[in-house]
Amino acid sequence: MEAQVAVIMGSTSDWETMQYACESLDELGIPYLKKVVSAHRTPDLMFEFAEQARKQGLKVIIAGAGGAAHLPGMVAAKTTLPVIGVPVQSRTLNGLDSLLSIVQMPGGVPVATTAIGKAGATNAGLLAAQMLSMYDLDIAQRLADKREQMRQTVMESSDQLG
Amino acid sequence: MEAQVAVIMGSTSDWETMQYACESLDELGIPYLKKVVSAHRTPDLMFEFAEQARKQGLKVIIAGAGGAAHLPGMVAAKTTLPVIGVPVQSRTLNGLDSLLSIVQMPGGVPVATTAIGKAGATNAGLLAAQMLSMYDLDIAQRLADKREQMRQTVMESSDQLG
Amino acid sequence: MEAQVAVIMGSTSDWETMQYACESLDELGIPYLKKVVSAHRTPDLMFEFAEQARKQGLKVIIAGAGGAAHLPGMVAAKTTLPVIGVPVQSRTLNGLDSLLSIVQMPGGVPVATTAIGKAGATNAGLLAAQMLSMYDLDIAQRLADKREQMRQTVMESSDQLG
Amino acid sequence: MEAQVAVIMGSTSDWETMQYACESLDELGIPYLKKVVSAHRTPDLMFEFAEQARKQGLKVIIAGAGGAAHLPGMVAAKTTLPVIGVPVQSRTLNGLDSLLSIVQMPGGVPVATTAIGKAGATNAGLLAAQMLSMYDLDIAQRLADKREQMRQTVMESSDQLG
Amino acid sequence: MEAQVAVIMGSTSDWETMQYACESLDELGIPYLKKVVSAHRTPDLMFEFAEQARKQGLKVIIAGAGGAAHLPGMVAAKTTLPVIGVPVQSRTLNGLDSLLSIVQMPGGVPVATTAIGKAGATNAGLLAAQMLSMYDLDIAQRLADKREQMRQTVMESSDQLG
Amino acid sequence: MEAQVAVIMGSTSDWETMQYACESLDELGIPYLKKVVSAHRTPDLMFEFAEQARKQGLKVIIAGAGGAAHLPGMVAAKTTLPVIGVPVQSRTLNGLDSLLSIVQMPGGVPVATTAIGKAGATNAGLLAAQMLSMYDLDIAQRLADKREQMRQTVMESSDQLG
Amino acid sequence: MEAQVAVIMGSTSDWETMQYACESLDELGIPYLKKVVSAHRTPDLMFEFAEQARKQGLKVIIAGAGGAAHLPGMVAAKTTLPVIGVPVQSRTLNGLDSLLSIVQMPGGVPVATTAIGKAGATNAGLLAAQMLSMYDLDIAQRLADKREQMRQTVMESSDQLG
Amino acid sequence: MEAQVAVIMGSTSDWETMQYACESLDELGIPYLKKVVSAHRTPDLMFEFAEQARKQGLKVIIAGAGGAAHLPGMVAAKTTLPVIGVPVQSRTLNGLDSLLSIVQMPGGVPVATTAIGKAGATNAGLLAAQMLSMYDLDIAQRLADKREQMRQTVMESSDQLG
Repeated sequence: MEAQVAVIMGSTSDWETMQYACESLDELGIPYLKKVVSAHRTPDLMFEFAEQARKQGLKVIIAGAGGAAHLPGMVAAKTTLPVIGVPVQSRTLNGLDSLLSIVQMPGGVPVATTAIGKAGATNAGLLAAQMLSMYDLDIAQRLADKREQMRQTVMESSDQLG
Repeated sequence: MEAQVAVIMGSTSDWETMQYACESLDELGIPYLKKVVSAHRTPDLMFEFAEQARKQGLKVIIAGAGGAAHLPGMVAAKTTLPVIGVPVQSRTLNGLDSLLSIVQMPGGVPVATTAIGKAGATNAGLLAAQMLSMYDLDIAQRLADKREQMRQTVMESSDQLG
Repeated sequence: MEAQVAVIMGSTSDWETMQYACESLDELGIPYLKKVVSAHRTPDLMFEFAEQARKQGLKVIIAGAGGAAHLPGMVAAKTTLPVIGVPVQSRTLNGLDSLLSIVQMPGGVPVATTAIGKAGATNAGLLAAQMLSMYDLDIAQRLADKREQMRQTVMESSDQLG
Repeated sequence: MEAQVAVIMGSTSDWETMQYACESLDELGIPYLKKVVSAHRTPDLMFEFAEQARKQGLKVIIAGAGGAAHLPGMVAAKTTLPVIGVPVQSRTLNGLDSLLSIVQMPGGVPVATTAIGKAGATNAGLLAAQMLSMYDLDIAQRLADKREQMRQTVMESSDQLG
Repeated sequence: MEAQVAVIMGSTSDWETMQYACESLDELGIPYLKKVVSAHRTPDLMFEFAEQARKQGLKVIIAGAGGAAHLPGMVAAKTTLPVIGVPVQSRTLNGLDSLLSIVQMPGGVPVATTAIGKAGATNAGLLAAQMLSMYDLDIAQRLADKREQMRQTVMESSDQLG
Repeated sequence: MEAQVAVIMGSTSDWETMQYACESLDELGIPYLKKVVSAHRTPDLMFEFAEQARKQGLKVIIAGAGGAAHLPGMVAAKTTLPVIGVPVQSRTLNGLDSLLSIVQMPGGVPVATTAIGKAGATNAGLLAAQMLSMYDLDIAQRLADKREQMRQTVMESSDQLG
Repeated sequence: MEAQVAVIMGSTSDWETMQYACESLDELGIPYLKKVVSAHRTPDLMFEFAEQARKQGLKVIIAGAGGAAHLPGMVAAKTTLPVIGVPVQSRTLNGLDSLLSIVQMPGGVPVATTAIGKAGATNAGLLAAQMLSMYDLDIAQRLADKREQMRQTVMESSDQLG
Repeated sequence: MEAQVAVIMGSTSDWETMQYACESLDELGIPYLKKVVSAHRTPDLMFEFAEQARKQGLKVIIAGAGGAAHLPGMVAAKTTLPVIGVPVQSRTLNGLDSLLSIVQMPGGVPVATTAIGKAGATNAGLLAAQMLSMYDLDIAQRLADKREQMRQTVMESSDQLG
C-alpha cells in the first residue's frame, strides 16, 4: 500500500527517538516510509524530497531533528503539506534548543511541533493519523478505540500504587 | 457555509493574538467559527464543545491560551480531531510558560504546537488549511499561490535596505 | 476512618514521587485515598472525581503530574476545595515544564504549588496537614512535634561533618 | 471582626501586586490584616509575627516577595499555619528568581506557591478562602457563586471577538 | 570594486539590526553586497545564492535571522565559505531562540555565531574583516587602528562618570 | 587558635560540596569552625548564630545551601560581617534555583555569591582568605604563593594534551 | 584621604548602574576612586590596574560589566584582593548572561558576585564596607546604624498600604 | 610545517572536548599547535600568546573554555586575528554559562562562537579551515570532498533504520 506518511530524520542516531512515531503508525495500520534526510548534510536531497512529497501521494511529513534543528522548518518551506516537527533531545541542552529551533517559525511557514523526545515522536505518529482521520472514518474509529484502551489502562492502574 | 475550523481561546484578551489565525483562514477562504472557551472558567463547556466537534462537521480545532495553558491539551483529550495549540505571550514569562504547557504533552494525546504569539496564530490558520489541503486540491492551490506571493515580496524587498 | 485528603496522579510512574506525599500523611496519621486519575487519558473520570470531592467529605486534593501537567489546574477548575499541585520531574526539562504548567494559573482558579519532585511531594502532604490544622489542634500539635524533631536532628548533625 | 488571614509583603513597592490578594478577600468578605514585614530588613519582626500568628487567631498567611524572595519560606519556618507565597515580578528576571526562591522549598517546610505577579496575588486570596471553606460552608457558597459568575462572563464574551 | 562580503538577512525588518554589520564594513573600507534572502520564503534563492557565492568572488557571508533562525545554517550547508550568523533579537524570547537556532549546529557544518542583536551585527562585520586580514595586511592595519581608537576612547571616558 | 571564618550549611548532605571551602581554608592555614545550621529547620539557631558572630571574633561567614536557598541571605540579614553564599547544586534544576535564591538579594543586605557547586565552595574559602588578606600580609603572601603554584601547574600541563 | 575601594566599569554606559555602588560608599564615608576600565578595549590598562591595586593601598575592587562580562574575573586573576562583581543588566538577556559570566568562575579565582543591576551595585558598595568593617569598628557601627535605619523605615511603612 | 592554527584551552580537562577540533584539522591536513593557556591562572601567558600570534604566522586561534569562559574573549581583545570560541560543557549548567560567556561579546571585539561541546569543537576545526580556504583552493577542495563524503554517508544510512 502506498505510503501516506513520511517519517524523516536528520541522522540514524535520531532513530532511537523517531521509532516511536513509526510505532504509532504501525499500531494504527497507516502505511508510511522512513528515511534519513539531513538538512545540513544532504540539503539538495531534502529539497527534492519535500518538493516531490505531494506528487508522490504523501499526505503528512513527520521530521525529527535535534540541536539547531532545521529539517522540519526547511521541509515545510518546500511543501504545502502539513509538516510535524519532533524535537529530538540534544546532548547539552536537553532538547530546549531543538524545541525552539523547530517551533519558533516565522509567520507564513508553519511546523506542527510536538513534545521533546519519545513522547513527541509517539504523538507525531498519532497526530498524522488524526489528520488523516479528518476524512477517513476508519482511522477515526481506530483512534477512538486506542483512546478507550488508554482509558481502561488508567482505570485499572490505581491498584498498582504502593 | 459550514465551519471547518474552530478558533477558540481562553479569554477575550487572547483575541489580540488569535485574530491572526482568523486572518489566515479569511485570506484562504476557509469557513470557521470563533468562540471564547475557558479551560478553567468554563470546563464543562470546553468538554461539551470538544466532544461534539467532530459530529458538528469540524475538521480542525485551533486553541490559543497563555500561562498555564491547558485549553489545547484538554480539548485534545476529548476529541480525536487534530488540535493546534497557539501559545499566547504571557505577561511575566514571555510565553515560555504557555509554550511548555502546550507542547510538552504526554504520549497518547498530541497537540500540534505553533510559535509563541502573532506568528504562531498566523501559522495556526495556515496549518489548518494545510491539513484541509491534504484532500482539497483547491485549498492546496491557494496555499501554493500564497507561497508564491510571499516569495515575490521577498524578491523585491532587497531594494528597501538602507 | 473517612479520607480527608486525596492523593491523585496522572500515571503509575508518578508514584515514585507521589509516595512521599502519602508518607507525610501516614506519619501525621491523616486518612487519605490514593488514585490514578489522568487529565488526558481519563478526562471524564477527572471531572467526576473533582465534582464529587467536597460531597464525599474530602477536604484537600493533592495532584501530581509532569510535563504539560494539566491535572492540578483542571481539578481546581472543577472544585472549590484547595488543590495542591506537585510538579513531577520530567525526563527532558527536569520538571521546569511541570512547574510552569502547574503554577502559572490565571486569576480565578488557584493551585497551591510545591517544589519539583520528592521534596514537593513530601511538602504537599505536610501542607494538607497544615490546612487541616487550621481547625484541628491535634494535627497542629503533631506538626509542631515533627518540627521539633527536625530541629533536633539538625542540632545533632554537625558532628557528622568531615 | 478578627482577621483570619494576614497579607504581608517585603516592601511597600509590593503593594502594587499584593493589593489583588486583598481585593479577593474583600470580595469574599473575609477579614484580614495587611502589613509590611521584610525578611531582610526586619528579620526579628518577621520571626515574632510568624511565631505569634496562630495564637492571634490567624488561620492563613499570604506572603509576597520578589527577587531572592525569602519572606514566605522563613515565615513558614516559624509557624505551622499554611503559608501562601506570591512571587512578585522582579525587574531583571521577570519573577523567575522570585518563583524559584519561593517554590523550591526543602522537604519539611512547605510554601503554597501561586503564579508570578497579579494573577498569583488574586489567587492567593482565593486560595486562602478555599482553605477556610474546608470547614466554613458559607465561604464555600460564596466561592461557588464567584465561579458561577466567572462562568457567565466567559459564556457571554464570545460576542466581543472581532 | 567587487564585493568580498555578502550581508544577507531573512526580512527587511532585520535591517534595523544588520545595518550595523554594514557600518563596520563601511568603516573599514571593505566592499560588500546586501540582500534579503529568506530561508523559509525564498528557499531556492537561498540555495542558489549560497551555491554561487564562492564562484562570484565572495569570501565571507554574514547572515542574520531571528526566531527559528535557519538562514545561517542552511547557507552554511550549501557553501564551504565561512558563514557568520547573527541572532536577531526576537519579539517573544529576546533572541535566545535565534541564538540557539544558529549556534547549536551539528558537527560538520559550522556557523560562526556572534552576540544577539546590534553588538552581534557590529561584530559580524569586524569578524569578516578579521578573516580577510589573515592575508591582507592593509585590513589588518585598519583593524589595529580601530582598536587603538577604541582604547583611546575608553582612556578618556573616566572623566564622564558622575 | 580562634576561628576567623565560619563554614555553615543547611544540611549534612551539603558537606559533599562545602568540604571544598574547608579544604581551601586548611591549605591556607586559616582557622575556622564548621556547623550545620538550617534556615528552615533551625531558624532560631540561625538567628542566634548570626547575631553572635561578630562578638565571637568571627570575621567572615561562608554559608552553603541549595534549592530555595535562604541561609546565606538570612544570616546576612542578622549580621554586618561579610557573608559568602555558595549555591549547592540542586537535584532538579542543577543549582540555578540555588544561585538565584542567593544572589538576587535586595539592595541593603548583600551576599557575596560564588559559583554553583564545588568550584564555588573552593572559591568561598579563597575569597574569605582574600578578605582577611586585606590587613594580613602573611595571608596575602600565601595567596600569592598559591597563585604562582597554579600558574606553574598550567605552564607544565600542555605536555599532557593528546 | 586615600581611596580604599576602587569602583571600575567596562564603559560609561555602566555608570547608570554603578553609581549606586558609589552612593553606598558615599553614605558610609568610605573613600573610593572610580574609573572606566574595559576588559576588551583596554586589556593592558586593566592588567596594570589590577597588578598595582594592592600596592596603591586599595583594599577592595568593585567591577561592573554586562553581557560577556569578563572584567571582574580578569581583574580577579591579576590580584589577590577581594573583587566584587556586579552584573549589569544587558539589553537582550536581562543580565542573565552578565550574571553567569561573572559568577561561574573556576576554582582558584573567586569573584564575589552581587545581584543583577541597581540592587547589586548598591550591595557591592555595602559589601566592600562590610569587608572593611572586619577590622574597622567605626565602619561596623555605621553599617549597624544604616541597618537600624532600614528597619525603622519598614516598621513605619505599613501605613502606606492601600 | 609552520602552524597556521592554534588550539588553546583553559585546562587539560578541556582536552576531552577540544581534541575534536584537532581531529578536524588533522583530517584536512592543516598544521596547528595545541596548548593549555588559562585566562584566570596564566593571564600573562595568555596576553603574551595573543599578542605574538600574528607575528608568529598564526592565522586563526581556536579557544575552548567552560563556565565563566573568558579565554576566547580575552584572546580576541589582544589580537586582530579571528578567534573561534568553543563553549565547553560545564558540570552544573550544561554549558549554557560557557556559551553566554563566549558569545555575548560587546561590539568591537568579536568571537566566532560554535556549538556547546563536541560538535562545537569539531566545527571549530572546520571553520578555521573554511577561513583558510578563502585564499587556499586546495583546502577548499578538501572541504568540498569532506562535504561530499558526509553526503554519501547520509544517503546510504536509511537502510540502517529499524
